[in-house]
Amino acid sequence: MSEGMKELHVSSDRVTAVYLVETPYSLERAAEVIAGEQSTGTFTAVPGETARLKELHGARIERIEPQGESAQPSLPGAKLPAGHDGSYNRGLISVSFPLHNFGPSIPNLMSAVAGNLYELQELSGLRLMDLELPQAFADRYPGPKFGIAGTRRLAGVYDRPILGTIVKPSIGLAMEDLQQLVGDMALAGMDFIKDDELNANPPYAPLAVKVKAVMEAVERAADKTGRKLMYAFNITGDIEEMRRHHEVVVEAGGSCVMVSIMSIGLAGLAHLSSYSEVPIHGHRNQWGLMTRSPLLGMEFTAFQKLCRLAGADHLHVNGLNSKFYESNESVVRSIQACAAPLLGGYETMPVVSSAQWAGSAPATYEAIRSVDVMHLAGGGMLAHPDGPAAGFQSMKLGWEAAVQGIGLNEYALKHPALKRAIEKYGRS
Amino acid sequence: MSEGMKELHVSSDRVTAVYLVETPYSLERAAEVIAGEQSTGTFTAVPGETARLKELHGARIERIEPQGESAQPSLPGAKLPAGHDGSYNRGLISVSFPLHNFGPSIPNLMSAVAGNLYELQELSGLRLMDLELPQAFADRYPGPKFGIAGTRRLAGVYDRPILGTIVKPSIGLAMEDLQQLVGDMALAGMDFIKDDELNANPPYAPLAVKVKAVMEAVERAADKTGRKLMYAFNITGDIEEMRRHHEVVVEAGGSCVMVSIMSIGLAGLAHLSSYSEVPIHGHRNQWGLMTRSPLLGMEFTAFQKLCRLAGADHLHVNGLNSKFYESNESVVRSIQACAAPLLGGYETMPVVSSAQWAGSAPATYEAIRSVDVMHLAGGGMLAHPDGPAAGFQSMKLGWEAAVQGIGLNEYALKHPALKRAIEKYGRS
Repeated sequence: MSEGMKELHVSSDRVTAVYLVETPYSLERAAEVIAGEQSTGTFTAVPGETARLKELHGARIERIEPQGESAQPSLPGAKLPAGHDGSYNRGLISVSFPLHNFGPSIPNLMSAVAGNLYELQELSGLRLMDLELPQAFADRYPGPKFGIAGTRRLAGVYDRPILGTIVKPSIGLAMEDLQQLVGDMALAGMDFIKDDELNANPPYAPLAVKVKAVMEAVERAADKTGRKLMYAFNITGDIEEMRRHHEVVVEAGGSCVMVSIMSIGLAGLAHLSSYSEVPIHGHRNQWGLMTRSPLLGMEFTAFQKLCRLAGADHLHVNGLNSKFYESNESVVRSIQACAAPLLGGYETMPVVSSAQWAGSAPATYEAIRSVDVMHLAGGGMLAHPDGPAAGFQSMKLGWEAAVQGIGLNEYALKHPALKRAIEKYGRS
Repeated sequence: MSEGMKELHVSSDRVTAVYLVETPYSLERAAEVIAGEQSTGTFTAVPGETARLKELHGARIERIEPQGESAQPSLPGAKLPAGHDGSYNRGLISVSFPLHNFGPSIPNLMSAVAGNLYELQELSGLRLMDLELPQAFADRYPGPKFGIAGTRRLAGVYDRPILGTIVKPSIGLAMEDLQQLVGDMALAGMDFIKDDELNANPPYAPLAVKVKAVMEAVERAADKTGRKLMYAFNITGDIEEMRRHHEVVVEAGGSCVMVSIMSIGLAGLAHLSSYSEVPIHGHRNQWGLMTRSPLLGMEFTAFQKLCRLAGADHLHVNGLNSKFYESNESVVRSIQACAAPLLGGYETMPVVSSAQWAGSAPATYEAIRSVDVMHLAGGGMLAHPDGPAAGFQSMKLGWEAAVQGIGLNEYALKHPALKRAIEKYGRS
């Protein structure tokens, strides 16, 4: 029986994982340990590990690219080989896994391509840099239902970035104040507002109450402006709770839900995506714990693919010159990764935020060469000397200048809202 | 309305998080940034952040305990203060958060106590060491339904550790071979077998087929031995898939399901726990990425509380002298943490594994002073010179010696199975 099944279900499809590795052993030895641990091997040879089983199920080392040496181990606990010369080899190692070992399942993919690797004694560093996935994942996970085009349609914003802001103070705002703030922003022309990631369904302001208050303000403003602001309600929560809250948002006419992806997991995101009727705004708080140690965890290039597969219509990427530790080079790589096609689709809108203003537009445009981005600013719009409407206007002008290749200062000569923004924010 | 609601829903309950922090600033300044970022503050003062709002919703610095200095930053990207003297301050910082900021919700707790902290420029290191949670979490999350007592009842094992093994080769074993292996082990007296974490529901051996094959072997052996081996079926997968597979296991008379907690997320685990009818065996592969960098991520002391709240009846903790990087001190801390009561209950069975054998018993018993542990060995039982039954016997004897405080070699004088195990495994 099982042999017959094997013939039916074995395909040549493979998943390729690229790792940045550091090891006191040779890179070849490290690659063998990685491939063995995550497929047919265990710490010692076992009787059933036949040649045929290895051929059908073994992981394969595809490429080893040395990247120099380090005099110190990046992570603790590595075991040293006999006669170790004190140096640690670094390199990129590509390993491919037969898809039929785990099937097109994100949770089981993670156990295979990450699994125990971070704990191996033979390594003093391991970082998952990228993943290449076969078409079978596309058949299993439909991905974002709205992406860039669907979000633009709902927000009524074309040919420029979707510009938005974040509710502050993030916690404790009275419902009347929140309603006022949302109404004011909507009248000022804002495209998008999101809840803070700290604020989902707190006991002092249950989500259902917030949805009602916010949507009243959104609808009232839409009656005047003719355009409905998109509000991303933070429905982060337990699995069934998210389903209920998604329904509350949709029934009230809301056009976006937000989740903290690390809080609900990729499985939670894929589940939400299986029934969502509005775009999913993917926040990446806690991501730092997976990425800030350079020889550990994961590069965003790999993570964003998983988030897109799991259905994130929008995906946070930090911003240039932000308040966080991340380098601008890394932010640019993240934006470009989100913009690259995945399995023929999986369009997601990169969300640029943190300490942004009109002056952030040129470098962001330079990185992405596209206006298909969501650009969020809090103080960078709201604290504009002439008010939020002028702040919003200045962001639009910043992008106009960027797209037309006109210097910001030159464009500001004819556009007072941009000029005033540069005077306020351009000095830091 | 909202003021009234506040009065109703504001309580004095707080969550306390303990962080190990490294910063080029003073520890006091770092503590303020942490407390501000994760509650009412943003990068600049905003009009609505009133004194009353801060009082109701602000995070509070509870304690700062200096732990020396480092000449190098542990993580990249920290911003240096003017006139920085080149040293980085380390210390434990306790911060408490009002529970009503997020409510007793694990996903939203994580956004509050972890959130953006790992990315702050003011820090060159942050590790969540521990969490103190109020009773409200116990009201929301019922936790493990079986724990130690329930698992013992189902496995029929009392007054000693539950001893088990892992299916190897982890991938590609034909169903006939798996069935044979499980039957042999069950007849040898084994208490418990688990799927490998790499093997859940692969296309070449769908879970439903595996459950049928394994349970036939388990029932046949039980007819002879009078005791039913507990098999942990790896149901790691997408949210709805896990529910279906849990049902397949229960309908076939299975008595345990296993999940890779990091693959399904704490939200996925809590969801499984909401309907599970058998113990949940919690595997922690991928955990290394959250913990191996000493000044990043999380200590297991904190993580195991979340896993227990979310319903893990069994929880992997590595083993002493394992094949992984983790120090024995850290493994002991993990076992002790799992054994400590949480909110008056939340009993979980620590699962000790990786390169274990009879000789691992004394030190493990020393750490936990209890036999309430699941002790897994692959080669350490299966490769015993006199076969798996003798291997199983040797593990029991190792624990008897440990509990009675008799030296292993002394006990081996009267017990050949232990003597032979020491001869084989005791030389490394």
